[in-house]
Amino acid sequence: MCAPLVIDTVRRGLSRRGFVGTIGACATAGLMPAAAQRGPVRLPNGFRDVVDLTHPFSPSLPVYPGYKPVEIRPRFTIARDGFADNELTFDEHTGTHLDAPSHFVSGLVSADRIPVDRLIAPLVVISLTDRAAKDADTLVSVEDLRQWEKRHGRVPAGAFVAMHSGWDARAVSTDRFLNRDSNGTMHAPGFSEQAARFLVGERDISGIGVDTLSLDAGAAQTFVAHLAILGAGKYGVELLANLGVVPPSGATIIIGAPKHVGATGGPARVLALV
Amino acid sequence: MCAPLVIDTVRRGLSRRGFVGTIGACATAGLMPAAAQRGPVRLPNGFRDVVDLTHPFSPSLPVYPGYKPVEIRPRFTIARDGFADNELTFDEHTGTHLDAPSHFVSGLVSADRIPVDRLIAPLVVISLTDRAAKDADTLVSVEDLRQWEKRHGRVPAGAFVAMHSGWDARAVSTDRFLNRDSNGTMHAPGFSEQAARFLVGERDISGIGVDTLSLDAGAAQTFVAHLAILGAGKYGVELLANLGVVPPSGATIIIGAPKHVGATGGPARVLALV
Repeated sequence: MCAPLVIDTVRRGLSRRGFVGTIGACATAGLMPAAAQRGPVRLPNGFRDVVDLTHPFSPSLPVYPGYKPVEIRPRFTIARDGFADNELTFDEHTGTHLDAPSHFVSGLVSADRIPVDRLIAPLVVISLTDRAAKDADTLVSVEDLRQWEKRHGRVPAGAFVAMHSGWDARAVSTDRFLNRDSNGTMHAPGFSEQAARFLVGERDISGIGVDTLSLDAGAAQTFVAHLAILGAGKYGVELLANLGVVPPSGATIIIGAPKHVGATGGPARVLALV
Repeated sequence: MCAPLVIDTVRRGLSRRGFVGTIGACATAGLMPAAAQRGPVRLPNGFRDVVDLTHPFSPSLPVYPGYKPVEIRPRFTIARDGFADNELTFDEHTGTHLDAPSHFVSGLVSADRIPVDRLIAPLVVISLTDRAAKDADTLVSVEDLRQWEKRHGRVPAGAFVAMHSGWDARAVSTDRFLNRDSNGTMHAPGFSEQAARFLVGERDISGIGVDTLSLDAGAAQTFVAHLAILGAGKYGVELLANLGVVPPSGATIIIGAPKHVGATGGPARVLALV
């Protein structure tokens, strides 16, 4: 019952501390001994809160068409072996995951080789939930970026720019997430080619992210946003969660990028420090 | 040529900034376009540096006996499909990875449900490289922890306590890493049962870590340190890298714990902010 509860808590707009408390309650209910429930831990260097931007990675989490859902198979069990271990199989581009430049452009950097100081970035959140609720094909535009800058100042050096469309609330249903029309065309928001080109050409970003399955809109015929971002040596993160409970400016994102050799991407634990 | 160079750099004790620069040079040489090489990025909230505590995850990285090395199989290629994707298969307890309480104790918390504020922790490094070079069976003792506290003050609330034995320099060879004797017994340092019990009973830690394959010594007959730590609802991290270039006190560790449902553990991207 925890996932819907957390989503509901987020949507009711409770405080971040309340939200994190809810996650903690879900995580520990009846499971962790008292010693592990001490806290909250004092975060370092003036940070007040941490928010998990990662979906639980499960066989029921939506995947982009063509990829297979994760398989989780027990290989060792405590009852039989004294310890437990699962074997996992998945495509790199499933779950809350990173797209490396090498996902689309031969010869560009793979996920394991992205410089580590690019994995810790000022978080810029562009929220278009109201628009997306009425128009699933809406795009992050250059005007959206300029509006954000009017309120919060110039996009900081090394920033990670995330689109919050509200799509994470649909993750309980693959049909609702893919949002196909009668012709089979998907409809979900994404970055416009112009916005992607503006960010790599006119600003110094580390990467961009979305709470949908693709940096590009669902109905896009070609991967224009992917190519603009990855082609410039930047990275993407798809299927982000909980962007609604981080501020539009001032948080720091930490991307636990995969480090298997030659990774074109892969599931990543993504946290925000507030 | 980068991995041995980095290891050599670490062992010569160059500055952290120099070390991170070396990693950056390896990562980007000839691969990333100019735009991605800007930097270094300014880290948030007074942090000066970031160090990668994660080994590259590859089929040649040593694994604990019984587990299989990671398999990385291309499923889509840019030449044929316009984009690249690999399918991965691995045991959870391979690579630089987390051990959840549920790895050894039924009913305790799985990796995906560890409260997120426990994944960002004050980093305590107990270095015993000199001792380990002479005696591969040496253990982190309660006395080692008390000596650390004499110099740096009490282990901070929520700390992650890491053993730095120098074993990461052996990662280029499974034989050297496992360090078996003529009877097949492995020899590598680990936490003593007393030290593990002291940390969970007398201090408020989040978890412990090692640069070897096991929280327990290689020659241990039973998993006493595992059971003390995981049984108390704390987590472990094994196969850490580069602990020699973070200070013994004052850094912050960030553990990109796996989030697949029911995880008994799994590969984790582990970073230190200095």
